Amino acid sequence: MIASSAPLAAATESKHLFLRAAAGAATERPPVWLMRQAGRILPQYRALRANFPDFKAFVKTPEAAAEATIQPVDELGVDAAIIFSDILVVPEAMGLDYEMIEAKGPRFPQVIENQHDVAKLISGAEAASHLTYVYEALKITKRELADRVPLIGFAGAPWTIFAYMVEGGGSKTFSKARRMLYSQPELSHALLQKITDTTIVYLRNQVESGADLIQLFDSWAGELPPAHYSAFSVPYLQQICEALPEVPKTVFAKGAWFALEELANLPCQVIGLDWNITPEYAKKATSGKKVLQGNLDPCALYADIPTIEKETRKMLKAFGSNHIVNLGHGVYPDTPLDGVRAFVQTVVSSEW
Amino acid sequence: MIASSAPLAAATESKHLFLRAAAGAATERPPVWLMRQAGRILPQYRALRANFPDFKAFVKTPEAAAEATIQPVDELGVDAAIIFSDILVVPEAMGLDYEMIEAKGPRFPQVIENQHDVAKLISGAEAASHLTYVYEALKITKRELADRVPLIGFAGAPWTIFAYMVEGGGSKTFSKARRMLYSQPELSHALLQKITDTTIVYLRNQVESGADLIQLFDSWAGELPPAHYSAFSVPYLQQICEALPEVPKTVFAKGAWFALEELANLPCQVIGLDWNITPEYAKKATSGKKVLQGNLDPCALYADIPTIEKETRKMLKAFGSNHIVNLGHGVYPDTPLDGVRAFVQTVVSSEW
Repeated sequence: MIASSAPLAAATESKHLFLRAAAGAATERPPVWLMRQAGRILPQYRALRANFPDFKAFVKTPEAAAEATIQPVDELGVDAAIIFSDILVVPEAMGLDYEMIEAKGPRFPQVIENQHDVAKLISGAEAASHLTYVYEALKITKRELADRVPLIGFAGAPWTIFAYMVEGGGSKTFSKARRMLYSQPELSHALLQKITDTTIVYLRNQVESGADLIQLFDSWAGELPPAHYSAFSVPYLQQICEALPEVPKTVFAKGAWFALEELANLPCQVIGLDWNITPEYAKKATSGKKVLQGNLDPCALYADIPTIEKETRKMLKAFGSNHIVNLGHGVYPDTPLDGVRAFVQTVVSSEW
Repeated sequence: MIASSAPLAAATESKHLFLRAAAGAATERPPVWLMRQAGRILPQYRALRANFPDFKAFVKTPEAAAEATIQPVDELGVDAAIIFSDILVVPEAMGLDYEMIEAKGPRFPQVIENQHDVAKLISGAEAASHLTYVYEALKITKRELADRVPLIGFAGAPWTIFAYMVEGGGSKTFSKARRMLYSQPELSHALLQKITDTTIVYLRNQVESGADLIQLFDSWAGELPPAHYSAFSVPYLQQICEALPEVPKTVFAKGAWFALEELANLPCQVIGLDWNITPEYAKKATSGKKVLQGNLDPCALYADIPTIEKETRKMLKAFGSNHIVNLGHGVYPDTPLDGVRAFVQTVVSSEW
């Protein structure tokens, strides 16, 4: 068992397996959910999605977002729901609009290049006030879930949001964003602080709207050299975790194996792991200080059912305890539903 | 000093700093070169490239490839030349044609999906015989270099070539290629062996045509979970290294921090490092058994000159010895030439 702070006593005593596990309490089996479980793997999601002209219209319709959030709970029997949304609603709320291009990903017509661009951005409570559709979706979901499973809220980590705002979209190297850290370090910190200020209010509002746990996605952590990750990402994760003492927090920094020791000192309870990291390495690097979440290779779910069961059991055994089961990345949209079911069922029928 | 095998005595006693360092011998300063130094960073490369309708026609013209190879030696004063070519000439020689789409990357109109596709591929000496334009380019380069600096030959690692042949091009996740490892492991091994058989003859021919050292690029190493990297990449790297006893070999497995201990047992002399890995971690993981090559963040070269000098010196100090200086990835095409010069000059004027 991992020591938990006083404000997390509620989670420790929760009736929900997922919250107890996240707070470091003993559970009868590990809880399981999947990143991107509210998505294209489900036929009912694809049917719901067809009602909207584009992804953003879908995200901005609270009733639809709530329905997408609950679908995997009904269909797969996972132990937590995660609010259907996108990390890029934050830059948009700050005044930097984006387009979501089907099968390609996001694109920002305007990017952040200089001090003037940073000064123009709104931040904090003012920016977060533009995200009422997310708070509304959380409230509807919470009501309709009727306490069946806990509800996860989330946001992108400041470095990852920064990367999109400077780069203008996805990228193989994020070299424009990384360049700014070398060429304009002070401006970089100013932008990261504005993103952080907004994210803190945004996440506090999510908690007030019903989120039981908050996950931070640092999707582009692995693009940074270790010294830059320490300087330009970790301090902002720290600020956010400190600002949300009343709920458990999960930090998922994809590719940041090199920062695990440092992340283990954050005031969060759970560390998400990608599929490159062995459970043995992660346990050692975090010195048993955190609950670990992950980390089956999403591609394992393309295999036949006996292979999925075998790989899932191998992972369960390697973690042993203080574990929340997930994949090492969001489930890929073309994953067969039977593979996902086999993964969830193997965990649900397991014992510690 | 690192113990070197008898066949490498020639490298140990070479007049060339780069070969002596690669063989683990003491040198007065670390040698320096850059991955992708023969490329768009040089105005003379862009002028030469303009003579060809497409990238592949350029690669297949030995005189032009030789000229591109020598340009950075003249312009930057680097300690080694690397033959101008592409790792995808190997699948093409095996019968799987590709297109290089400007600013996008490679695309294979046909991909490998089943046993029939693998059976159709030619391999070994027959496939390698289609690559005479590379051998010719090496011979011309070797003659024109007139022993000024050593010449590096290279190939993609079998897993990386496999990834392109199954995926059909670059990808954010390489999920099709990774899926095959789970769903058709025997077929995967058959394909990897065919690629390996071809690569061995191809690289032997490169050595006979004048290559002084061979580098293997495992660009997509970091996409695999550790157990798959051990099963589907390392054994084929081992076969290739064993087949080339007379020259020093470098293995650059991008993202494979988790496999460093295993890579340190390969019969190669040098391990290339990406910019995620601290010199301290790499030295510990390889137990001082290998010369380490790398690993400044390519984005550091976008900074002002004093910052580049400072970051380069910091890296030199952290490695200390048994080090070949390079970036942690290929130099980005839009890097200012003055930044590249500052990087090279800082190393050239350094002392151990």
